[in-house]
Amino acid sequence: MKTVVWQSLSEEQQNAVLERPAISDGANITSIVSDVLNQVKQDGDTAIKELTAKFDRATPDSIRVSEQEIDQAAARLSDEMKQALEQAHKNISVFHKAQKAQPLSVETQPGVVCELVTRSINKVGLYIPGGSAPLPSTVLMLGVPAQIAGCRKVVLCSPPPIADEILYVAKLCNIDEVYNVGGAQAVAAMAYGTETVSKVDKIFGPGNAFVTEAKRQVSNDFRGAAIDMPAGPSEVLVIADETADADFVAADLLSQAEHGPDSQVVLLTPSPMIADQVAEAVQQQLKSLSRSDIAKKALGSSLIVITESLTQCVSISNFYGPEHLIVQTKNPRELLPLLDNAGSIFLGKWSPESVGDYASGTNHVLPTYGYTRTYSSLGLADFSKRMTVQELSKEGLKGLAQTVVTMAEAEGLDAHKRAVTIRIDSICNEQLNQQ
Amino acid sequence: MKTVVWQSLSEEQQNAVLERPAISDGANITSIVSDVLNQVKQDGDTAIKELTAKFDRATPDSIRVSEQEIDQAAARLSDEMKQALEQAHKNISVFHKAQKAQPLSVETQPGVVCELVTRSINKVGLYIPGGSAPLPSTVLMLGVPAQIAGCRKVVLCSPPPIADEILYVAKLCNIDEVYNVGGAQAVAAMAYGTETVSKVDKIFGPGNAFVTEAKRQVSNDFRGAAIDMPAGPSEVLVIADETADADFVAADLLSQAEHGPDSQVVLLTPSPMIADQVAEAVQQQLKSLSRSDIAKKALGSSLIVITESLTQCVSISNFYGPEHLIVQTKNPRELLPLLDNAGSIFLGKWSPESVGDYASGTNHVLPTYGYTRTYSSLGLADFSKRMTVQELSKEGLKGLAQTVVTMAEAEGLDAHKRAVTIRIDSICNEQLNQQ
Repeated sequence: MKTVVWQSLSEEQQNAVLERPAISDGANITSIVSDVLNQVKQDGDTAIKELTAKFDRATPDSIRVSEQEIDQAAARLSDEMKQALEQAHKNISVFHKAQKAQPLSVETQPGVVCELVTRSINKVGLYIPGGSAPLPSTVLMLGVPAQIAGCRKVVLCSPPPIADEILYVAKLCNIDEVYNVGGAQAVAAMAYGTETVSKVDKIFGPGNAFVTEAKRQVSNDFRGAAIDMPAGPSEVLVIADETADADFVAADLLSQAEHGPDSQVVLLTPSPMIADQVAEAVQQQLKSLSRSDIAKKALGSSLIVITESLTQCVSISNFYGPEHLIVQTKNPRELLPLLDNAGSIFLGKWSPESVGDYASGTNHVLPTYGYTRTYSSLGLADFSKRMTVQELSKEGLKGLAQTVVTMAEAEGLDAHKRAVTIRIDSICNEQLNQQ
Repeated sequence: MKTVVWQSLSEEQQNAVLERPAISDGANITSIVSDVLNQVKQDGDTAIKELTAKFDRATPDSIRVSEQEIDQAAARLSDEMKQALEQAHKNISVFHKAQKAQPLSVETQPGVVCELVTRSINKVGLYIPGGSAPLPSTVLMLGVPAQIAGCRKVVLCSPPPIADEILYVAKLCNIDEVYNVGGAQAVAAMAYGTETVSKVDKIFGPGNAFVTEAKRQVSNDFRGAAIDMPAGPSEVLVIADETADADFVAADLLSQAEHGPDSQVVLLTPSPMIADQVAEAVQQQLKSLSRSDIAKKALGSSLIVITESLTQCVSISNFYGPEHLIVQTKNPRELLPLLDNAGSIFLGKWSPESVGDYASGTNHVLPTYGYTRTYSSLGLADFSKRMTVQELSKEGLKGLAQTVVTMAEAEGLDAHKRAVTIRIDSICNEQLNQQ
């Protein structure tokens, strides 16, 4: 890990060391994905089978995973694994249930009632990547809020063969349909529908460059589907002071570094001693990691920044906007009101990132790549939408009429004005008739 | 307006009559906008001045509108106009203040505390279109939530000359910077910044095809800016029963039709009598509208659908997903729980769309073009983002450790596991030392 002293850098150098590596434009990926989307739109299930054979080298018996297969998967899992997944499911459920929006009703002026009501998104699609190890935690992070929001149809796609852990969590989350489809073809199937796969309104979940590009393309097509958020490499930033445990900090940095060679890992500390100790502990712990090759690559572009103060650590973190932000200082909660632009914040030495990745209850689907400035941690709100309602009484309309008429006149919109005056005239006539 | 009887149509025909016209792909627009973005990125203020002279045929003295000009604008407005704008500002403020998220803190299991905290988006840009008439109402709809969310910098761009009403509302909303820039160049300036115009994190507001395309392009660039929502033509759908006032319904349909030739206007009613009366009233009222040419064009593609029942009206509306949904029935509130996929709902005969467009308190920036299935009415949430926080006590971590370790093992992530076990080992050692 490279160590820099913040104050010794020019402003330009400061910006440069924090700059995230560009994600390659990949014109090649764009056209490959566009072809896959067109193939699935045209040939539906046939295309899915061909693409699954080609890209995943798999020929599952059927596109849809049967109830029976899901039950069999559960039977093969250890009790320990089932308990762990259930505990995580419970905690994530508790935190996401607490996010339920209360209906809102306000009388903005006499007789004018405005309301905000929430409805679940009807049909959602969850994408779970394949790869060397299964990701049941991601099924929980997407499946639990979909379940609590009350989405009417929840579809899951993952490249075959789908791991038992994933199928078990799919059952825990009451997911309606599970499909043996991965990659861009899974995104296409959920965005446009096929003979077998249900079309959904919104697609969630992480994936490789092809999946990310497919999500981008379908979200730019109004006949496609909305998506959760833009994706980038995973990141952690740790703020540590001299009271931090260097071994704990090193373990946290490595648990980010092992995610992938493009993972971003940053330590900010006002303590040169901690900077040294952490750098050494990282090297020490790295030796015994099974994914040390991946972690080493990520550490190659990682950074330790020695700052003047904790306040400066906070400013740098807010500027960088990390996905995960770990605060290991004497009084971490004191810093919280100052912290901004982060996906999820971990306070204190007993709160490693991995608890949030799996089971504390927070969601591990978080904005990356600086999108923390504008995007939120995934939550119940992303599986719902808010509609406004207004209801005016006759008196309410009378009280608001002049304002609306004046503004409609200013905007040159006659019919907008008349929609009010025609009603006011009718009220006046009614009153005259009553006299 | 074309009238159809729903039951007499095949399913295919039903889908076809409700299909929205495709928005032209406009490869031409794509490249023009891309050129404008590049020009502004490269040449900053110089590019803005050139493009403003070219597209808006205007050469304002300075890009930024001065405080003095804003004060002079206020002095030129009538008291009536100022009162109307202030009343609208007040109502919109009341409704958006009520949307403030309460901080959330939950102990998901003993010693594991999860929180949801909200922060305003730091810097936001508001785009206000120019055109034949000023749109102060849009300044209110964007400026009020930015103000209430507490965004630190609020920037407004609008093509010169900027109307007095717009400048007055900008002042009411405490907008920090107002610029004489319109079109794609305004979006570029706010997304990338220039010598004069501040770069923002997120851009809001409606615009023509060039503005919409510019927003799309900058939102696909991670060095650009996020945007509010995808845009499409404005729409209204009215559900009316035999108790509705045909003149009121006609006035509401026309107030949508006058927005633009591509406006979508739909009436659903189980009453053939109301269908006839409304069609006639529309023709009658059309005659005296100043924008009758525009409204006529919109009515050309508009639709009256005669249904079997109010329940069928609700299903069709939910399928179509209108931006504005007006319910003029005997008991409109009874239908509310069944209504889904709408931007804003207007209940009862005294609630014309124009009250929501201007001053009831709800936001008039709404999802269109079927995006109501997944997008929300613009609100305070769009000017904020949610971060999660977790803090575990030593006991909390001990209670959760096994779950995290088991899941990390299943996912093959050693370092994730070790970030927990290294802490648990330290707790054990501490306890041994104390004995």
